Amino acid sequence: MNQYCGRFITFEGGEGVGKSTNIRFVAEWLQQQGVDVLVTREPGGTDIAETIRNQLLKAHHQETMSDMTELLLVFAARAQHLEALIKPALAQGQWVLCDRFTDSTIAYQGFGRGLSLELIQQLKTLVQQQLEPDCTFWLDAPVSVGMARARGRAATAGEAIDRFETEQQAFFERVYRGFAQLAASESRFRRIDASVSLDQVQSALLAALTPLLPELS
Amino acid sequence: MNQYCGRFITFEGGEGVGKSTNIRFVAEWLQQQGVDVLVTREPGGTDIAETIRNQLLKAHHQETMSDMTELLLVFAARAQHLEALIKPALAQGQWVLCDRFTDSTIAYQGFGRGLSLELIQQLKTLVQQQLEPDCTFWLDAPVSVGMARARGRAATAGEAIDRFETEQQAFFERVYRGFAQLAASESRFRRIDASVSLDQVQSALLAALTPLLPELS
Repeated sequence: MNQYCGRFITFEGGEGVGKSTNIRFVAEWLQQQGVDVLVTREPGGTDIAETIRNQLLKAHHQETMSDMTELLLVFAARAQHLEALIKPALAQGQWVLCDRFTDSTIAYQGFGRGLSLELIQQLKTLVQQQLEPDCTFWLDAPVSVGMARARGRAATAGEAIDRFETEQQAFFERVYRGFAQLAASESRFRRIDASVSLDQVQSALLAALTPLLPELS
Repeated sequence: MNQYCGRFITFEGGEGVGKSTNIRFVAEWLQQQGVDVLVTREPGGTDIAETIRNQLLKAHHQETMSDMTELLLVFAARAQHLEALIKPALAQGQWVLCDRFTDSTIAYQGFGRGLSLELIQQLKTLVQQQLEPDCTFWLDAPVSVGMARARGRAATAGEAIDRFETEQQAFFERVYRGFAQLAASESRFRRIDASVSLDQVQSALLAALTPLLPELS
């Protein structure tokens, strides 16, 4: 567990695996247990970090963003998010539920784009120092299932598909292998099968969450 | 000298030492010698990097930017500037004149704000790899002279004084010591006395530039 009173829980996974829906579900359930909950997301979570997020997602028609620039912007947003929001919330005893964190950087920028995993690890150590999530839920669904859901959702909402969502299937397969490798090596990971019904996913989440609540375990 | 055909020349110094005026002078003189010149600046220099610059200079009223965020944004802008503008220009044989570069990060964020010099060095190595300026002009004027000039210029133009220019005198004294230490340790540094008349400054710049032009030296 981290050095703070609150718990830091991250939700990871590919496109369309149901992170948003399940974070809302977990937040409501925790609040019913009397837990003070903060829901946030990466990249973003504060005004400064959200401005950096917008820059990351924006397509620049006349200029290609270099991989190194992308990685440094991701960690600049993360540093701000940690200092201005996450650490103060944890220190006040809030539970922080975060949609994506450094594991997504490892999976997307590292495994997906092929940026040096050692470099990402250096920046992670620099920015996070000793702080790690207490628990990371990996919502695991096959890439084809997640991509179909994400595309359907974007089409229904009439949304433009952003830069990351237009990447190729092969890219998302590499991202998937990144999450699978992290899940195999990091004891804080809890793999949740996200290819089953929503009820089943949420039962699995509650089963994994309950031991984190001292009064219930 | 770098691995490219062109030369990479940076201009450093505190506030109000005359960098802009003297870069324009050097650019015109080099063009008269038949050199293809590109003038640029940091942070910034490309659309993406200028957007990052705007974020660095903008005051956020409800949120303080962390030192780590500031440093990572500076290097994100630099990575983009190098990949999208500076390296392609040098490869085409242009001479790149750059208003501030990593030495300013060392002086302002390192010596000025007290961020780890080792950390800045790590990010420098990461982003620049082997590339260093071929020559760095340090326009050296006492802090009091430069600050008076910068304040007068801002007042005359009716400009708002940005976040960096509102820092205290003690901060700029630390920045000055940073440049002085770099000048003492880096052989690429050329100290130019910027407290004398503009004619004298420009004569000193030409004397230092001439050996870089193979056909004149």
